[in-house]
Amino acid sequence: MSLFRPDVEALQGYVPGEQPQESGWVKLNTNENPYPPSPRVVSAIQQAAEGRLNVYPDPLGRGFCQAAAELFNLDPDWILPANGSDENLTILVRSFADKNDLIAYPYPSYILYETLSEIQGTRHARLRLEPDWSWNIKINRPLIEQAKLLFVPNPNSPSGNHWDREVIQSIVPPNGVLVHDEAYGDFVDEPHKLELLHSEVGKQIVVTRTFSKSYSLAGLRFGFCVAHPDLIAGMRKVKDSYNCNTLGLAAAEAAIRDQAWMLENRAKILATRTRLSESLKSLGFDPVPSQANFVWTTHPTISHREIYEQLKGRKILVRYMNFPNAAPESTTNRTGAVDGLRITVGTDKQVDAFLEALSEIVAAG
Amino acid sequence: MSLFRPDVEALQGYVPGEQPQESGWVKLNTNENPYPPSPRVVSAIQQAAEGRLNVYPDPLGRGFCQAAAELFNLDPDWILPANGSDENLTILVRSFADKNDLIAYPYPSYILYETLSEIQGTRHARLRLEPDWSWNIKINRPLIEQAKLLFVPNPNSPSGNHWDREVIQSIVPPNGVLVHDEAYGDFVDEPHKLELLHSEVGKQIVVTRTFSKSYSLAGLRFGFCVAHPDLIAGMRKVKDSYNCNTLGLAAAEAAIRDQAWMLENRAKILATRTRLSESLKSLGFDPVPSQANFVWTTHPTISHREIYEQLKGRKILVRYMNFPNAAPESTTNRTGAVDGLRITVGTDKQVDAFLEALSEIVAAG
Repeated sequence: MSLFRPDVEALQGYVPGEQPQESGWVKLNTNENPYPPSPRVVSAIQQAAEGRLNVYPDPLGRGFCQAAAELFNLDPDWILPANGSDENLTILVRSFADKNDLIAYPYPSYILYETLSEIQGTRHARLRLEPDWSWNIKINRPLIEQAKLLFVPNPNSPSGNHWDREVIQSIVPPNGVLVHDEAYGDFVDEPHKLELLHSEVGKQIVVTRTFSKSYSLAGLRFGFCVAHPDLIAGMRKVKDSYNCNTLGLAAAEAAIRDQAWMLENRAKILATRTRLSESLKSLGFDPVPSQANFVWTTHPTISHREIYEQLKGRKILVRYMNFPNAAPESTTNRTGAVDGLRITVGTDKQVDAFLEALSEIVAAG
Repeated sequence: MSLFRPDVEALQGYVPGEQPQESGWVKLNTNENPYPPSPRVVSAIQQAAEGRLNVYPDPLGRGFCQAAAELFNLDPDWILPANGSDENLTILVRSFADKNDLIAYPYPSYILYETLSEIQGTRHARLRLEPDWSWNIKINRPLIEQAKLLFVPNPNSPSGNHWDREVIQSIVPPNGVLVHDEAYGDFVDEPHKLELLHSEVGKQIVVTRTFSKSYSLAGLRFGFCVAHPDLIAGMRKVKDSYNCNTLGLAAAEAAIRDQAWMLENRAKILATRTRLSESLKSLGFDPVPSQANFVWTTHPTISHREIYEQLKGRKILVRYMNFPNAAPESTTNRTGAVDGLRITVGTDKQVDAFLEALSEIVAAG
């Protein structure tokens, strides 16, 4: 007899990308930033480590909230810091979705939305995207109208495309919350400035952000939500009192106050992204135009899994992803899988190593 | 119309102890350790800060698990690290307790157990303790037998008393999990060595531990569970993939490997605890003999809230706690409240300042 909840017993569990702990890998599989965080972040951590680690952190993380609020020209009560953006998503599910509520998300997208729905034991639905990664709003409308929570990663993963603000505003559930997951938001050519929150449907939108990508701090586990204070106040009741630690709060505050450092790394990544996409095309691949720090690509003839394995044999890790039943509602092929390779934009040197290996594999294949 | 789950809408929310961010307070209200963490911990953090914060941590925290397993002479798959012991408790509730399941806990004890039950929307029940803080197992048996999760903080808070192993083994729910919350376990005169886990009912017990108290790392947010690998494996599916950050993992590993530092601070706290208890008695108070790093006390005539306020006026913070409906099942006075003061064992200097203020207040009252 299992003591676990049936929902947990049935759960496969989310499998994160491989994280080899030994060195020597070209790691282009989990969308980490290849550049180090701001030296001011490192100083802030070192100073906090010599401070008062024996006492609890500020439960509301007010120093960080103030810094984030200044960046967005909002009051601090619009900000909720969390132990990584994943914790933001967990808090959202536990705040808004009961057993009989529907959680919806585009498909293919970030598979964790589905796992979190399964853990919570809610109803959940995949909103199939078109082959060009656009929304077919008409077909998905009935599920959108039922949704209590609609998670929309924008830019989307694995595809890296970005949906316009008009699209997002048109899919806010009438009786629910749209979570605009901006994990990759800083890599968009023209990052938005939270205009969504100031729109007519703004009180039903929660924006989530992370320090893992653009701020080079995946190891820190720090993310935050931006939303109307009424939403933030309710979510605060659900979070653990001290969900953010003293070091993380100090580091994140230093990071968000050093926009110049982040933007310089962003510029390098955007330049490398263009080069990576062009090179993929010249090797016969079909990359999706990316607005993120990764590129999703397919090849018309060579097996994607085979390419992944061959790269791994050369100690180059990219992400092979396979999404079963991903053919959109609008097509007749409802059982078709979508698979491909998601390649993180690394340093120029890492991308060169990847491209060199890839051209050998393509030549042999 | 509220978009929140009705359970969340109804929630008061857990209110943690006051955390004044400015200096100048004698802070004896949230059971922090007054001594700094091991210098090896500070070094480990500073080294990790200069390392690879741009990449994700090991999702399983294997370095830490290995160190904890060595301390307890177990295999590493008995260990689950978490973002503070509060996250352990959240993971436990989400793993084991469904809407119709019963979560039980002694009362008065750590009020967060009730808050977490309310967030999850489960049934929950208080098991009233006797006036001397002992269990009336006979009267509580029907609820214990129904419980899916039984949280037992041992030593208990706010009382600081410790229940024998025989008592704990006799209250393991026949079809559920007993969580032996050892937040204060290192302060017991004879700390147990996880004998509970090796008992006949060991597969239904989860031990939780924290670095916030004995290891002087409340600011770090780091705790862990120890339990049979079958239980740990299921709980891993529920936790966020990267729930522990790179800095916390490095710090906790260094802390658990420096037992001498922790034990030296523990010895100081135990000596001060004895002195604090004796002084309270000589001022006319009735302190409960403590096995934790705090002392719970009442006074036969002076208002506890009044003492708290007067101390606060002198910038000395202790915890005033009031538990309504705390009179035990075995008494006729079912609506009686229990209130009193919970005083953290600080440094000798802090305790002297507290005792001096207290003797003035008693003399005036």
